[in-house]
Amino acid sequence: MKIGFIGLGNMGGPMSRNLLAAGHDVAVHDLRQETAAELVSLGATWRATPRATGADREVVITMLPTPRHVESVLLGGPDGLLDGLVPGAVWIDMSTSVPDDKVRAAAVAHGVHVLDAPVSGMAKGARAGTLQIFAGGDEAVFDRVRPVLDVMGDPERVLHVGPNGAGYAVKLMINLLWFAHLVATTEVLTVGVKAGVDLDVLRRALIASPANSNFLESDVLSVLRDGDYDESFAIALACKDLGLAVDLARATGVPVELSAVVEQVYRRARAAYGDLAGEMTPVKLWEDLTGTPLRLKETA
Amino acid sequence: MKIGFIGLGNMGGPMSRNLLAAGHDVAVHDLRQETAAELVSLGATWRATPRATGADREVVITMLPTPRHVESVLLGGPDGLLDGLVPGAVWIDMSTSVPDDKVRAAAVAHGVHVLDAPVSGMAKGARAGTLQIFAGGDEAVFDRVRPVLDVMGDPERVLHVGPNGAGYAVKLMINLLWFAHLVATTEVLTVGVKAGVDLDVLRRALIASPANSNFLESDVLSVLRDGDYDESFAIALACKDLGLAVDLARATGVPVELSAVVEQVYRRARAAYGDLAGEMTPVKLWEDLTGTPLRLKETA
Amino acid sequence: MKIGFIGLGNMGGPMSRNLLAAGHDVAVHDLRQETAAELVSLGATWRATPRATGADREVVITMLPTPRHVESVLLGGPDGLLDGLVPGAVWIDMSTSVPDDKVRAAAVAHGVHVLDAPVSGMAKGARAGTLQIFAGGDEAVFDRVRPVLDVMGDPERVLHVGPNGAGYAVKLMINLLWFAHLVATTEVLTVGVKAGVDLDVLRRALIASPANSNFLESDVLSVLRDGDYDESFAIALACKDLGLAVDLARATGVPVELSAVVEQVYRRARAAYGDLAGEMTPVKLWEDLTGTPLRLKETA
Amino acid sequence: MKIGFIGLGNMGGPMSRNLLAAGHDVAVHDLRQETAAELVSLGATWRATPRATGADREVVITMLPTPRHVESVLLGGPDGLLDGLVPGAVWIDMSTSVPDDKVRAAAVAHGVHVLDAPVSGMAKGARAGTLQIFAGGDEAVFDRVRPVLDVMGDPERVLHVGPNGAGYAVKLMINLLWFAHLVATTEVLTVGVKAGVDLDVLRRALIASPANSNFLESDVLSVLRDGDYDESFAIALACKDLGLAVDLARATGVPVELSAVVEQVYRRARAAYGDLAGEMTPVKLWEDLTGTPLRLKETA
Repeated sequence: MKIGFIGLGNMGGPMSRNLLAAGHDVAVHDLRQETAAELVSLGATWRATPRATGADREVVITMLPTPRHVESVLLGGPDGLLDGLVPGAVWIDMSTSVPDDKVRAAAVAHGVHVLDAPVSGMAKGARAGTLQIFAGGDEAVFDRVRPVLDVMGDPERVLHVGPNGAGYAVKLMINLLWFAHLVATTEVLTVGVKAGVDLDVLRRALIASPANSNFLESDVLSVLRDGDYDESFAIALACKDLGLAVDLARATGVPVELSAVVEQVYRRARAAYGDLAGEMTPVKLWEDLTGTPLRLKETA
Repeated sequence: MKIGFIGLGNMGGPMSRNLLAAGHDVAVHDLRQETAAELVSLGATWRATPRATGADREVVITMLPTPRHVESVLLGGPDGLLDGLVPGAVWIDMSTSVPDDKVRAAAVAHGVHVLDAPVSGMAKGARAGTLQIFAGGDEAVFDRVRPVLDVMGDPERVLHVGPNGAGYAVKLMINLLWFAHLVATTEVLTVGVKAGVDLDVLRRALIASPANSNFLESDVLSVLRDGDYDESFAIALACKDLGLAVDLARATGVPVELSAVVEQVYRRARAAYGDLAGEMTPVKLWEDLTGTPLRLKETA
Repeated sequence: MKIGFIGLGNMGGPMSRNLLAAGHDVAVHDLRQETAAELVSLGATWRATPRATGADREVVITMLPTPRHVESVLLGGPDGLLDGLVPGAVWIDMSTSVPDDKVRAAAVAHGVHVLDAPVSGMAKGARAGTLQIFAGGDEAVFDRVRPVLDVMGDPERVLHVGPNGAGYAVKLMINLLWFAHLVATTEVLTVGVKAGVDLDVLRRALIASPANSNFLESDVLSVLRDGDYDESFAIALACKDLGLAVDLARATGVPVELSAVVEQVYRRARAAYGDLAGEMTPVKLWEDLTGTPLRLKETA
Repeated sequence: MKIGFIGLGNMGGPMSRNLLAAGHDVAVHDLRQETAAELVSLGATWRATPRATGADREVVITMLPTPRHVESVLLGGPDGLLDGLVPGAVWIDMSTSVPDDKVRAAAVAHGVHVLDAPVSGMAKGARAGTLQIFAGGDEAVFDRVRPVLDVMGDPERVLHVGPNGAGYAVKLMINLLWFAHLVATTEVLTVGVKAGVDLDVLRRALIASPANSNFLESDVLSVLRDGDYDESFAIALACKDLGLAVDLARATGVPVELSAVVEQVYRRARAAYGDLAGEMTPVKLWEDLTGTPLRLKETA
């Protein structure tokens, strides 16, 4: 298929690479042309503007940092993507974002099919082509682009989750719930340890209880083993996701007292430890406040 | 063994019954004598006061509703339990409670060994003798009374979790984390559904994600299937447990913004739906606020 | 002065009218042309686009509902305001909004001076020309447009509060603090009344204490007298302001646990009572939850 | 009058002194006898137990640190106060506490009249005899002991606020609201300053707005001037009051999400800066997190 790809960062770069390796005709664009160098050497075509990127494509994928970038790429000035896409083309937004009625309405007015299909799995999953993908939009459109999604993702975890917007929602809600588990579990582990329970014993008791979770059992708790904090997913990104999740709650009219506090705890960790601290850093907030290192002795 | 048992409610009654069935010599006491009738017919001896209950016992177990009751039974007036226990006896408090330095110090001064050993498993587990038990105190004391605990609990889930206080802490932290999962998951499910995602699809996606938890997978979510809310564990009890959990955080000097909000959400559900509403009732808060019934179509 | 005015709603309409009455040459624009009818009959000139509105103006004022509208009016397509303004003109954004680096940079690139100057005082203050105005930007620019601001506002309450962005911030922080006072005071009044204190006695005691506030003393508490809730400032607008306030906290890297909870309480009131309920409606949440009407007997 | 006084700390000591100076016959007791030395030299009589303190008194006042102390003094063992008081005597609890049904019922059973009458004004007000006093109980009882209260307090601020429990509630609610104002105002000032508004300008704008409060205007904000934090009211005491306020909300069935967060913020400040840090210390949390000293330049 003729595919366009806009946004060649640490996710979009590897995703494009996998599309090329699968034999697709890929035209690429990014604000920073240097991100395209390796892809061009692998057979991609450089396009100078979003509009040019859409010109002759059946499918164009965007993988951008914020909703604002998405709007700008789609609608911005005379070189926006929508002005380039031919009617009947499919625009797949794989960015972590929230529904934007204005952009979607413009796409529909251009005769362009829209799919929101954000991903989970991080740079590692992007490189390996094993991303989990949550697609929202018409079933027929999803079916049409399914082969493309299957290249970037693990086919068993490429899901059609509902109409437009459902993809964005599932991605944000998964992340929100994980962050909430982290904060709730950190409070519980800290109180338990300060009350005299050995951390490994407490964790095993929680794992054996109705309160178990993937978070409790997961490798990510190895950071407690090392006393390190996971820098592979910077806390600035966690704050971004949490802000979008709370924005989605605002847009859907759902009050979220607990999730709003989770977001602010993450922002507190960011203020305390800096933008590049890892997504586990809220654990450090409690360790430092109470003088109690949370160190597991045993392997997961 | 000669065992005393004080507190013959919906937990203590069945627990005493199992001790009798296992052949132990059980003396019982409760503020309401009628609770002892069946036990006496099964071979228990009625004792008129806590003091009398302790008189010739090697082990006395208390299973009482609040820390206040525990203090009153142990220390109250001339008929308190401590005045009856012989030095070297073991007092096992199986109540859901928090450490009480004054009571523990008095017990130690009386030469009595103390174990906190609260339970999980509810009335069903009490009747079946399959409770999970979390014991805090000296290892030697735990070993000595282990056979008694094994009668009331599932031996594989009778755990020595640390020094005095550790038992109380593990019990409260398990419950706190479960309640936090409920509130966090409810917010996430509600936003997802309002954003257009089918509830079953959303739940499956969350289960397949790093944000999975026992709560998401469990039978208790069948209440979402029926539109019923679980009345087997009244929300008044959930509020009690949450209050004790936050009290433990206060006592251990650990700030718990998220857990404090969880407690208040449960109190809000109790105010809205009454004391006898079930522990799942916070789900109903979000359903009613947003006009979105959360109904699963599929079986767990 | 030649003034342009974009956004002729329940604030912008009266503000424009006062400018006309003061003898200024006012050109007006709004998405809905009918909002300009009365102004045109009073001597205003209709302009068909933002660009046309800027064409020959020394000062252009925007009074728009959201940051998105502001961006769209300033930068949107070929008819955006910036493309019409002459270098040296002043753009005053009087909308309740947050700083937008992209828009401000574009304005600066066009040689346009920028002032953020949001207002307090509601439709009543707009009509009477007694608004409180908080201006952020260069002092020289502020001085230049001061006479224009003085027409719309009470000169003694037209304040230069700092550089660009400071105006937006002061407006949002005033509203945020007032909403926080409402929620905190509501919790306090409800607990006091449920604990047996007469509401008027409690309020007098609080007024006489270090915890007094304008909120406690103000006429707005007359809504408690009538059992009515103030519909002159709809709760949907309060939620909008609170969202922007929390957005400003996000942008400035300040964690705001308490303010985030205040925002969610307001969203809960909106979900419970509808978009058009008044800004006092959170009081009703506690009244309905606890079955305790909060009714003052005495006049303020 | 023959008055007994139990609890001779930094509040009770000066309060007793004023009673002696006013010519009353005062018998005193405290766990630490040395606290009575000065009072005895001024004419007070030492009593060895609470019971002895009640023996021949018309009025006995307790001024104790916690509800637990109150219960222990009133009911503890054979030497409790109630066993000493003659029927018809009045027990005034001036401690910051919450209603205790068990203690009150015991008092009533002894024919003792009960008044809760906690105070505001701190050690300074205790010494000067200018305390604000909030009394709950029968009007006739209040009238009878009014002259005694007027010695310790400013007669114009000695208030009868309702039935038993109302005094405790008013005191706790005043403190809770003040602490809530501190946290809310701190978030607002920090965001404003980080957004570029000069602190003095921001504070003046807030003072001139509907969001003004005594907290904003008060001398206590001079701590922001010095960069000092007020150590005259230790944060450990603030945490104690907040815990009691949230306990009262629990007991009255009022959910208090915002107040619960205020309590946890105070506990966080205590964990961060130690028990003896002042009640203004939460301000320091935001200063340190955001690297923004909040320093006023002008005098209040």
